Parts: sequence; C-alpha cells; structure tokens
Amino acid sequence: MRVLGLDPGLRRTGWGVIEARANRLTHLANGTIVTDDRADLATRLVALQRALAEVVAAWTPDSAAVEETLANVNPASTLKLGMARGICLLVPALAGLPVAQYLPMIVKKAVVGTGHAEKAQVAMMVQRLLPGVELASADSADALAIAICHSHMAQTRAAWGEAPARGRAALGKALP
Amino acid sequence: MRVLGLDPGLRRTGWGVIEARANRLTHLANGTIVTDDRADLATRLVALQRALAEVVAAWTPDSAAVEETLANVNPASTLKLGMARGICLLVPALAGLPVAQYLPMIVKKAVVGTGHAEKAQVAMMVQRLLPGVELASADSADALAIAICHSHMAQTRAAWGEAPARGRAALGKALP
Repeated sequence: MRVLGLDPGLRRTGWGVIEARANRLTHLANGTIVTDDRADLATRLVALQRALAEVVAAWTPDSAAVEETLANVNPASTLKLGMARGICLLVPALAGLPVAQYLPMIVKKAVVGTGHAEKAQVAMMVQRLLPGVELASADSADALAIAICHSHMAQTRAAWGEAPARGRAALGKALP
Repeated sequence: MRVLGLDPGLRRTGWGVIEARANRLTHLANGTIVTDDRADLATRLVALQRALAEVVAAWTPDSAAVEETLANVNPASTLKLGMARGICLLVPALAGLPVAQYLPMIVKKAVVGTGHAEKAQVAMMVQRLLPGVELASADSADALAIAICHSHMAQTRAAWGEAPARGRAALGKALP
C-alpha cells in the first residue's frame, strides 16, 4: 500500500509518500509546497492544487491521509487553514483515492507512542522508522508521520477485518 | 461583462450569474449547490467542486466574485467555511477567471445602500434590480447580490481607469 500523507497549510503544505508492506515501511519521497503570501488567495490555492496534483500523478499513492489540526488561533487563520485543508482533501479525492483524516494526537500516539510528543520527537521517530530518509522540512516530517499513522491504522483495520468472528471477539477482549 | 457570484458554504453554496452592460443588469441563472452532510468531507468537497465547475462551464462568466464572510462562529464551522470558500476561489481561478472577494457589508452597501441591511432587504433589492428573476434560495439571492456588487465595482474601476489624470484627481476630490 502506498500512502500520501499531507500536513496542510496555505503558506506551507508538507507532503510525504511511503510504501507499506506487512510491517515494512519504505520512504519514497517528501517535500514542501510553498505558496507566495504576496499573491492573492485564489492564485495561492491554484498553486497548491497544481503542485499537489503533480505529487499525486508522480507518486500514484493508493490512499491519502490528512492532518486534522483543531484550529485554536484567530478566525482569519482558521479560514485559511480550512482552505488549504479543503484543497488537500479535494485533490486526492478527485484522483479517486480514499482520504482519511487524523488528529495530531492520534498521529503522535501512532508514531512516538504518546499523544503529547514534541515536534522534534516526531521527526526523530520518522527518521528511525524510515531509515535513510532526508527530511525536506518540519512540515514534510509531519506529513510522513501522518502517512505512517495511516499505514498502521490500515493494517490494524485489515487484521480485524480478516480475523474470523471468534478471533475478533478474542481480540476485542484482549484490548483494554 | 458576465459575472458569477458565489456565497460559499459546505452544506449550501449559492451561485448566480448576471450580465452587466453599461448600467443594464440581466439575470441569467441562479441556483444552490447542496452537499450531503452525512457524506465524508472529501466527498462533499468533490461534489461542490464538480457542481461549481459545471456552472462555470455552462455559463462561461468573465469573472467571479466570492462573499468574504468573517467567521464569528466556532472554529470547526470556520474550518468548514474555509474549505467551501477555498473551492469557490479555486474553481473559477482554475478556469482562468479573475476572482474578487467582497465583505458582506460592502455587498449590502452596493445593493441596498446601507451596510447593515437585513437579508430580506437584500433579496428584495436583487429582485428589483433583476426584474423577473426567480430566486432559487436565500443563498442564491446573496450570490446574485455579490455579482451585482462586483459589476458596480468593476464599472467604477473602469470609469476611474479610463478617466484622464486630471479627471481622476477631480473625482478624487469629489469623494468624501
């Protein structure tokens, strides 16, 4: 399964693509889409859409996962974040990919083991889980973390879906 | 000049197309794009994008104008509004149209004459300015108001742009 992770922002959107096979993760690419904050909004959204469509076309992921930051800043910034996130949901969906969203806490828990990890810890774990990766930016490190989180979740869902009814019940009991 | 006005919302986006020639405005079409609030976000954004792209293709406007509501509700709603507005800015821009944004107060001032008009007053003035119009919804009435506002502004800008330097200075002095 090839996963595209996205950390949306109008100014900077991080992206990362990984290949997940069984328990093995491989880094394919990561980068940052930067839009010119002196350009008007529509121009910036077109730039983001085009760059993202190029990433999807170049790396042909099977699914996408987008960080679902809860906005706690001012309404104007929240609107801009909404615009960028909207484009990040739209572009892979237009390409026919299923698109998942994960809260930052869930991503941190999946990658570092705790939902309250620092950004630097996330980047360190991304580098450990994807040996040899060169991180383009802090945003693309986050995007790779989202892709890793999604591949974990997808594998868990697959394991549950594939387990027979009795097995599922046993799994359910084993969980806290 | 053919203008597409848009009143963005994730659940309901109003749209309206008018033709503006000199001081004469003609209604061409208006409607409401509704997305299924039980569907996931990416699916809803794709539905909005597709419907909007169809409107642009069908009515071939020369420019678009989008309402720039200042969000004063909760951050989750602001994010969704941002996503819808992002799509409303993106789709006409992708079609090569210039896209303007207007605050609701500016739209009301242009259409009703006061920035603090009620929604019903706006709809009434839209019906007076576009005789015979059948309004699909309150949202499409707002969208037509935005289109009317944009055509006024464009005519004002054109008059200013065309005036010789001395004329412009005189105009400038005539303003309060």
